Parts: sequence; structure tokens; C-alpha cells
Amino acid sequence: MGEFALIEEIRRRCAVARADVTLGIGDDAALLQPRPGSELAVSTDTLVAGVHFPAGTAPFDIGWKSLAVNLSDLAAMGAEPAWVLLALSLPAADADWLSGFCDGFAALARQHGVALVGGDTTRGPLTISVTVHGFVPPGAALRRDGAQAGDRILISGVPGEAAAGLTCLLGSALLHAAGPVERDYLLERLHRPTPRVALGLALRGIANAAIDVSDGLRQDLGHIAARSNLAAVLVADALPQSDVLLRAGDADQRLRWQLAGGDDYELCIAVSPARVADAQAAAAVCGVVLTDIGVFEDGEGVRVVDAAGGDVALPRSGWEHFVA
Amino acid sequence: MGEFALIEEIRRRCAVARADVTLGIGDDAALLQPRPGSELAVSTDTLVAGVHFPAGTAPFDIGWKSLAVNLSDLAAMGAEPAWVLLALSLPAADADWLSGFCDGFAALARQHGVALVGGDTTRGPLTISVTVHGFVPPGAALRRDGAQAGDRILISGVPGEAAAGLTCLLGSALLHAAGPVERDYLLERLHRPTPRVALGLALRGIANAAIDVSDGLRQDLGHIAARSNLAAVLVADALPQSDVLLRAGDADQRLRWQLAGGDDYELCIAVSPARVADAQAAAAVCGVVLTDIGVFEDGEGVRVVDAAGGDVALPRSGWEHFVA
Repeated sequence: MGEFALIEEIRRRCAVARADVTLGIGDDAALLQPRPGSELAVSTDTLVAGVHFPAGTAPFDIGWKSLAVNLSDLAAMGAEPAWVLLALSLPAADADWLSGFCDGFAALARQHGVALVGGDTTRGPLTISVTVHGFVPPGAALRRDGAQAGDRILISGVPGEAAAGLTCLLGSALLHAAGPVERDYLLERLHRPTPRVALGLALRGIANAAIDVSDGLRQDLGHIAARSNLAAVLVADALPQSDVLLRAGDADQRLRWQLAGGDDYELCIAVSPARVADAQAAAAVCGVVLTDIGVFEDGEGVRVVDAAGGDVALPRSGWEHFVA
Repeated sequence: MGEFALIEEIRRRCAVARADVTLGIGDDAALLQPRPGSELAVSTDTLVAGVHFPAGTAPFDIGWKSLAVNLSDLAAMGAEPAWVLLALSLPAADADWLSGFCDGFAALARQHGVALVGGDTTRGPLTISVTVHGFVPPGAALRRDGAQAGDRILISGVPGEAAAGLTCLLGSALLHAAGPVERDYLLERLHRPTPRVALGLALRGIANAAIDVSDGLRQDLGHIAARSNLAAVLVADALPQSDVLLRAGDADQRLRWQLAGGDDYELCIAVSPARVADAQAAAAVCGVVLTDIGVFEDGEGVRVVDAAGGDVALPRSGWEHFVA
């Protein structure tokens, strides 16, 4: 299987038709028709084997996740996904691996009506760089710099489950109360995250700021705080729990998973107190729960406190490449 | 130097201001304003250490070339470059390496007024994926599928010099007539290719089809032929020569460099016989020579012939990943 057969296979398996694609895969560049009057939201994220996923990860999951983490960035901007490019470096052209990868990538692309319009395939260490494009009305994007003092901090879903999945994957023990069903669920959360695209769209006009939690809630919340020139106070006891998570780890372990574990792809947002109910109602329509976990105030940095307002100590803030 | 310091360093060193960038590096996605009434041309190309360049290549050259090969794709579409995203995987956060890389990347970005609006930095084997965006009026793009039977094949500049540079780099001998000056020139052609952006724009409305020569002239010409459902007849004796190339290799070696060597980033175009003079005049304004090297005709594939019309044999057609 040479490079051109490989490209043709990707094109065929990942086909999603869109009327705004003048010319897709097969030329020097794709030709696309941006939505008139909209801004274009563009983001790129890379997954590297051995860094972002273990070498033995199923190709379906790698394909799914490489698109999911990018769609999550659009979700965090409140942008509607449209087009994607895929830069794929592979050690060898393995038809079975490619087939699984395309199935995972295409499954999520079809869910969101995203067209694969271009890319590049090269020989090299397994690395996947995806670039996504979406539309957002001018001024409507959910940025990191829009939080106001007094805004509540809301989080979607249950952060920490992906980190618990990683604990399983690395062979570490969960609590005895966690069995195979819990493990499968947590691994699914790690390998096939759900980008909160509908939620991001629903929060336009309601949330003042948003970020997707990819590197750990505490660190990512810190980005909103820093860009908005505010402090964030996060109440550890307010963090949403799931039955699975409660059965998987004790309180200390759960706190580490929830605050410092990455790969959640939940949305963390800033909402004025008067709009919290609106935000939660909008989320409910999307089938997602938004939990109030703290507040932005004047100052800087992220404080994690318990229910009584005392500081909670944490071993590490979150994931950062190039930091041991 | 952690990930966030590294991103800040890239942002600072590669800054190019554009009024159509609402929000650049530092959020979940960039927010961009497409040009009203234009189509968007988007392309991505990856460079992998040890595959696309030797491990010891100067970081300046890697930075330059990673953008150049992408701008070349826009040039081949006749698109005007606007925005770029950079996905960078690095084995370690080396400040000196990064500084050199940014200098090379930024030097070319500034020449073309291209704004770096986003990206991703990850730890991993040295891999650079760049995604470029440009504007082109609807219907004006230079595609691969527009060649007509009877169209002349024109090539810009002197293909083969980059391949001759690679021969130097790999330690193989050039002809005795080639000295250090020739070697330096050829290495420059390999490491710092000139994307033919102005030429691509000038050829809109004149050329019927275009491609950039990245994988070898014969193979890339074959893409135009295939997409246009035509045959291409390439006259080996018509290939443009430079003094340097003539001093660097004998006729056989030059033919291999010119037809099967990659990394030229010249434009190969299809032009109706009546418009060849217009194309050459437009190119002259850009300081580029366009040479007539053959013709498209009914049929399929690429034939390489000598001045008398006899077939010329070649060892390999061009570069294709995953093919030994």
C-alpha cells in the first residue's frame, strides 16, 4: 500500500458530503466556502504515540480521539464544526490499522457532519495532527478572557473519569468496589471522549468564558482566570461525582483525577449568577449536567478550597509538555 | 522551558499583524475573518526529521522550509496566503533550537504577510505539521483537473537543483567542475526553497491547471494528467538548465535530478498555446522564467521523450511515502 493508495482509502472511508466544499482531497489545497457573515474558528491538536496514548491503543480509538480533541476545542469556542484536515505520520502503511483508524475518525465526523477536506500522509513515528474549522457569528465566540468577577464556575459532566481510565490502563489498582463494568466505562471515557459541541453552541449568549478541560481542570481553569485577570476559587467538595467514580477511588485519588487528570474534554465555563439557571437549562436540553463548582473573584491564580473554605493541597496542577 | 513558555516564545517571535485576525494564539481556537466573496484555500504539509530532512539540519532551515512547502501549495492554487497554524512535536524544549526555528519560520511569514494564529506544541519525535489558509476568488483557483488536450506544459525556474543539493548533503560527489560556491547554492535551494506565491497569483486567468513540484516533476505532472484525463508528453531536452546544474552533474544525473528528484517547489502548469506568451510575460514580472517542456494530449500517463521523440528510460518516477 503506497502513499497514494493510502490517501484514496482515507478519502473513501471518511467521506462526508458538504455543499460548502468546492474541492476536497486530491489537489494542492482544498477550496472551501466560508459561511457569509460568520467568523471562522480554527484549531489544531496533535496526538503522539507513547505520549498521548499508549502504543497498543486500538486504531479506532486513536481515530476517534484525534478528531474528538479537536472538536472539543471548537465546542469550547461555541463554534459549529464544518471542515477538518488530517496530517498522519505512520511508521508503515498497515491496511488493517488504517481501516480501524478511519472507522473511528469517520464515526465521529459523521455525527457532526464534518467533512475531511485535506491532509498529508508521511512515513514517520505515529503522530496525528488534526486541524478543524468551524463557524461562529461575529462577537459570539466563547473566549477565555470574558469572565467577570462574581461569575460562577460551572463544569459539564464528571471530570476525572478519563484519568481514572488511565489509571486502569497503566495497571494501577482501583478500589475493590470497581469491577470490570466500571473499568470498561472508564476506559471508554478515556479513549472515546464526547466533545461537547451541542453544549458549546447552546451556551453562546449565556456563558461569559469557556475552555475545554484537556490538561486538568485546575490548570485549564487557571487559563480562564489568567486571561480574564481574575482569581478562581474552586470548591473541591462541589465537584460532581458519578457512581462509577465513587466506586473507583477514594476521596484523595478522586480529587487528583478530577483536578489534575487530563483528557476530560468537558467544558468549564464562567456564567454570571443571574444566568446560571439558563445555562443549566440549556445544558439539560443537550443531555448534559452543568455543576456549580466555584466562583471568579478579583485577584489571580486558582485556589482549591473545601466546603469550609480552607485550602486544599494538591500534588500537581495539570499536564504540561516538557515539564517533568 | 515548559510548554506554555515555549508557546509564548513562538507567539512573540513569529508575530505578524493582520486586521482579519480577531483572536490569535492563546485560546481554544483562533477566530478569523474570511475575505467576503472569496473562497478559502486550505492545505497541510508535514515534515518529519529523518524523512524530510536529515537530523542535523539547521533549525532556521527547518522553520523556513516547513512554511515554504505549505505556501507552495497555496501558490499552486493561485491563492493569496493569509493565516497559518503550526503543530510542533519536539523531543525536548531546546531554547536555542526553537529560536532558530522561529527565525526561519518568521522570516518567510513576514515576506508573505502570513499571521501565525494557532498551533500545538507536544513532546515527541521532531515533526512539524503546518496548515495554511489563503484566499482565491470563486472559480479562479488553479486546479489539477483543468488541463486541455493541446495545452503546453510549462515549468518555473530550474527543477533538479534541490535534488542536486541533496546529493551534496548525502556526501555523494558532484562533477569536478562544481566547487564550494555551487554546493552552497544547491544546498540553499534544498533548504530554503522559494514558494512561487506571486507567480501563482499572476497565473490566475491564464493557466488551465497547476501543481507544485514537491515529489519530482514526472510524478507531479502525472497528477495533472490523471486528474485532467490526459496524457503528458515531456521533452527531456527542453528541461531548463542552470550553469550550476550543468557544472554539478552529467546529463544522466541531471535528468534524474530534474525528473525524479523532489523538493523543487517550482510550479508546473498547463497553458493553452495561445496564452503561453501571456504566461511567460506574467512570470517575467515576478522575476521567474517559465519554460515550455511539453504538451498534454489525449491518452493517459506521462511519456518522457528526447528531442527526436524517442522514449527516455528513467529509474524511478518520484517520491512516494511507504514505497521502497
